[in-house]
Amino acid sequence: MNKIKAAIVGYGNIGHFVLEALQEAPDFEIAGVVRRTASEKPLELTPYKVTTDINDLGKVDVAILCTPTREVEKYAGVFLAQGINTVDSFDIHTSIVDLRRNLDKIAKEHGTVAIISAGWDPGSDSVVRTLMQAAAPKGLTYTNFGPGMSMGHTVCVKSKPGVKNALSMTIPLGTGIHRRMVYVELEDGVQLADVAKAVKEDPYFASDETHVMQVASVDEVKDMGHGVNMVRKGVSGKTQNQRFEFNMSINNPALTAQMLVGVARASMKQAPGAYTMIEIPVIDLLPGDREDLVAHLV
Amino acid sequence: MNKIKAAIVGYGNIGHFVLEALQEAPDFEIAGVVRRTASEKPLELTPYKVTTDINDLGKVDVAILCTPTREVEKYAGVFLAQGINTVDSFDIHTSIVDLRRNLDKIAKEHGTVAIISAGWDPGSDSVVRTLMQAAAPKGLTYTNFGPGMSMGHTVCVKSKPGVKNALSMTIPLGTGIHRRMVYVELEDGVQLADVAKAVKEDPYFASDETHVMQVASVDEVKDMGHGVNMVRKGVSGKTQNQRFEFNMSINNPALTAQMLVGVARASMKQAPGAYTMIEIPVIDLLPGDREDLVAHLV
Repeated sequence: MNKIKAAIVGYGNIGHFVLEALQEAPDFEIAGVVRRTASEKPLELTPYKVTTDINDLGKVDVAILCTPTREVEKYAGVFLAQGINTVDSFDIHTSIVDLRRNLDKIAKEHGTVAIISAGWDPGSDSVVRTLMQAAAPKGLTYTNFGPGMSMGHTVCVKSKPGVKNALSMTIPLGTGIHRRMVYVELEDGVQLADVAKAVKEDPYFASDETHVMQVASVDEVKDMGHGVNMVRKGVSGKTQNQRFEFNMSINNPALTAQMLVGVARASMKQAPGAYTMIEIPVIDLLPGDREDLVAHLV
Repeated sequence: MNKIKAAIVGYGNIGHFVLEALQEAPDFEIAGVVRRTASEKPLELTPYKVTTDINDLGKVDVAILCTPTREVEKYAGVFLAQGINTVDSFDIHTSIVDLRRNLDKIAKEHGTVAIISAGWDPGSDSVVRTLMQAAAPKGLTYTNFGPGMSMGHTVCVKSKPGVKNALSMTIPLGTGIHRRMVYVELEDGVQLADVAKAVKEDPYFASDETHVMQVASVDEVKDMGHGVNMVRKGVSGKTQNQRFEFNMSINNPALTAQMLVGVARASMKQAPGAYTMIEIPVIDLLPGDREDLVAHLV
């Protein structure tokens, strides 16, 4: 079997879990890891090439982008133009259409494939959301996140004066409404009340019920578990009250990484262009014989 | 906008709900209904052509097959060869691969598309099952059906001597194990114990906990609600204990019909061949502009 040669680009939390998912995948070969600096090498990367330049890795079929979300477009543009497929978990919902349009143009010019925003939300949740809408075209879907850490909200809290370290947890209250539980480690002499005020007035938090609490160590209260509860009540044809629900309780970066490996595989089967996960057949996420998959999963 | 011209083939329970779903779909035109006899016309079909021959309906883009499952292959073969796409909710799991292979050949020869086994199980459940497997490649998925009426088991009970009418309800007990609650209307002089024995010894029931009860009227205890609870606990990469769950509580024929209309729409966007639902992008099930859908659903 011709294995798919994948490069991991960026080696933070997601990159680490992508390495594990690739090691478990029967149809992938790890071409290497691309980092800003190649000098420090974590123990688990010992068997692999680590470089600052993807061209050092020989033939690469697909680059799995594990960079910060705002750097995705830059890297994807470069790799797609070099003849390398890219996949990412770009998660700024309001910019997905633009990213798709920009990468689609480059991918089509160079005969490559980009699959974007392929984590769990956006990502696998998007597939379920679309399927639920198809099952009951009229109605409301609520996506309830958590309990789990919100990266964006945590970064926002960390930026406030006097905050040494922070964690913003998202707590689902139903119908898409969330509570924010914020845990902060403060610098000496800083008043919790001042920090709490600054957090609650920030647009990130202003419309949500927010509680700010001081802790001795943020690291001691942090875990990477997350979850979602998606519900839709709607109308199939003229029949009301059709109910659908999807729940997950997961390790956040592990699931994101697994979806990235799935779409990296799927990128090998699509026509040139840029796609979101709702635009690719779910069967393409899996290895193995197509008829076997149909026999076991349909 | 050029509307999709759909014919409804077979007008039982599913056909009736397909009519309603098509009436609510913004992008479809109802070409007419094909029945074995066109003489009796239910009131709601007054505005539509009803015929025994699809050729009476003018141009038809897609035939939505609402016939008994065992007649699907015969009708699909004929229509595909005439240049008409077909969709069906063929539900004999063990024969899906063969049906797909046979129709794929005919469809490719005639430049048409067949989407098969597109109800809810097989159908939308298959998409969720595949997505769950992609999210956690190692692990177990359990599909728990019900509470709801099982067509196959009901037909089996009706075939027993002395049974006037029957209903077999599927009750989910978890981990894919089901209880069968069987309600029978008996002919005069027939002993319930004899019927119960015949039912419990039938291969359809022999491996499940089965209870057989006599009722005065089966019609009075029958409803078309159904449901599913699908759970997967598995491993993403090397991370154990990832949990996924999908639940539905639905009107059975209404959801089947809505999925059939979705795949009828999707059939217009696939390359010639035969597909199951896991092989088509979920976005193709929906009407509307692609970028709009990406913006709202991803």
